[in-house]
Amino acid sequence: MIRVGVNGYGTIGKRVADAVAAQPDMEVAGVAKTQPNFEAHTAVERGYPMYAAIPERAPLFSDAGIEIAGVVDELVADADVMVDATPSGIGAENRSLYASYDTPAIFQGGEDATVAETSFNARSNYDDAYGADTVRVVSCNTTGLSRVVAPLEEEYGVEKVRATLVRRGGDPSQNSRGPINDILPNPIEIPSHHGPDVKTIFPDLEIDTMGLKVPATLMHVHALNVTLESDVTAAHVRQLLDKQTRIYVIPEGMGLDGAGKLKDFALDAGRPRGDLWENCLWGESIATEGRDLYLFQAIHQESDVVPENVDAVRAVAEAADAETSIERTNETLGIGLSGDPSGFGDAQVEAEAADD
Amino acid sequence: MIRVGVNGYGTIGKRVADAVAAQPDMEVAGVAKTQPNFEAHTAVERGYPMYAAIPERAPLFSDAGIEIAGVVDELVADADVMVDATPSGIGAENRSLYASYDTPAIFQGGEDATVAETSFNARSNYDDAYGADTVRVVSCNTTGLSRVVAPLEEEYGVEKVRATLVRRGGDPSQNSRGPINDILPNPIEIPSHHGPDVKTIFPDLEIDTMGLKVPATLMHVHALNVTLESDVTAAHVRQLLDKQTRIYVIPEGMGLDGAGKLKDFALDAGRPRGDLWENCLWGESIATEGRDLYLFQAIHQESDVVPENVDAVRAVAEAADAETSIERTNETLGIGLSGDPSGFGDAQVEAEAADD
Repeated sequence: MIRVGVNGYGTIGKRVADAVAAQPDMEVAGVAKTQPNFEAHTAVERGYPMYAAIPERAPLFSDAGIEIAGVVDELVADADVMVDATPSGIGAENRSLYASYDTPAIFQGGEDATVAETSFNARSNYDDAYGADTVRVVSCNTTGLSRVVAPLEEEYGVEKVRATLVRRGGDPSQNSRGPINDILPNPIEIPSHHGPDVKTIFPDLEIDTMGLKVPATLMHVHALNVTLESDVTAAHVRQLLDKQTRIYVIPEGMGLDGAGKLKDFALDAGRPRGDLWENCLWGESIATEGRDLYLFQAIHQESDVVPENVDAVRAVAEAADAETSIERTNETLGIGLSGDPSGFGDAQVEAEAADD
Repeated sequence: MIRVGVNGYGTIGKRVADAVAAQPDMEVAGVAKTQPNFEAHTAVERGYPMYAAIPERAPLFSDAGIEIAGVVDELVADADVMVDATPSGIGAENRSLYASYDTPAIFQGGEDATVAETSFNARSNYDDAYGADTVRVVSCNTTGLSRVVAPLEEEYGVEKVRATLVRRGGDPSQNSRGPINDILPNPIEIPSHHGPDVKTIFPDLEIDTMGLKVPATLMHVHALNVTLESDVTAAHVRQLLDKQTRIYVIPEGMGLDGAGKLKDFALDAGRPRGDLWENCLWGESIATEGRDLYLFQAIHQESDVVPENVDAVRAVAEAADAETSIERTNETLGIGLSGDPSGFGDAQVEAEAADD
């Protein structure tokens, strides 16, 4: 069993902890938090040992009725692998802590690429992280782009990617963020940082990205153009993408016209928190015009990196090869039956039945 | 004086009527409405003769205290040119009415291109409409794209345009439209109809467009990629766009980060209804990567076609050549000092001072 510590138990950390707990070859050594908020109480309910991320604040936890197992240093010393899910920039500050205990660490995409030996997307470059001491799981958008680029690059070759990222303004719980009634180029400068970030996974890729922010909270949407190295039909591309386990190719006729209905579908299916770990890619949007491929996909910013973190744990622990890890993660979470026209709803029901 | 009748006095019609009234060589022969709502009362206040668009409903106007000058047929008979600003699809139904009185008619972009002899954008193809009996002013988005494509095509040649149109869900007054918290590919199929519509102005242009709808009401935003036929610098493109009178190149340092502030700027400047007749194009977004040009622009869906309608009137009436008409329209409305870093705020103030 790989003992995984999770430092930071917010949007990503709590999901990673639950996903780790669902793995047959992993256990949650503990989670570290800075404050005893509602999420801390849920962590305790779930039986995750709680550690104070800031030692001086340890008394706040006992004041709130939460018994802590210790401070974060003890968690780092105890864990085989640490997943750092702290806010952007804090991960880099924590780096020396993990190093001082020789505990391999996985960082999130909010950190600069320099925080780790390699950036990581399971589908694209799992082997680069194998046995590494530090790995950075790329951001939700970069993960979503990488999952599409990898098969296209392998199958057809990619001359250039041009992506417009229409990003949600904030997560549902980030109630102080905007915009409320505006469509903001963000950043106004082009290209946005997303293109260079994808290049941490595909160093030789030509990619230009444009980012915007809009008044929505549920998912990002990518308007993607890929100029391929060969002429292909939309049907051929669709077959290829259908085979990718972390891409859900939305079938026609399902009435899944946006993130609201996708979330409803996931919640109806009993998925934890209504999470959408896969790229949700509209099958009928796939179009080709000569060597130009176009498509729309929605990316659930709160959860698409979760299976990637699980795979990154196995990679740094040298516990499985890429194929084995991805398959195990998918199976335990209930990911990846996009070729099935009934979609991920049934996938989850089957996964739950298998758990009984 | 060209006597202009306006059939349909909603979002576009009321603005066109006001713009016509501001022209030294035009007058408003009258406006036709289907119902005596708030806009009808304002039209009466402004002194526009009111006609009942549906004869059977004429009594509703007198019930509402509005004296009508007659029914729409009489307006068509009296006017030199009709501007049809009725809802999409109704224009085509009105076509035979205008023809029966031999009154040249200008339709809006919501109609199919087949409604008229030519589609129209003043900057791009004014001469095609000269003396025509029927002209279709293309939609707000197509107008916005055409204004950018025309100078790029002339100066550099255009190999291909790829545009992602992040569209507002509805106008501020369309309170039953959505989405509320979603980012909808719309249409999901690619390409959207916008590309083919631009080709009604530039028949030989290669263009693919992708459309989305988001929870915003103020303006559309275009994320535009143009592959040019030659290598150019961003600075050179910016100089070129700065010279276009109906493109406001937003200067850095103005804090104009989105539609909300652009509207505030226009309202502060005293523009009628806070209208933004120009493409609002972020100067700092202009970027080139080899022959690939990228930029962001915001398009005010309620007003950017208004000066185009005014020019179309002069074209069908054979009242002025393109340069003269555009200059006259710009001067009377206060459009087009984008090369001036103080922006259109000062432009409007000067225009108003000149009116005194």
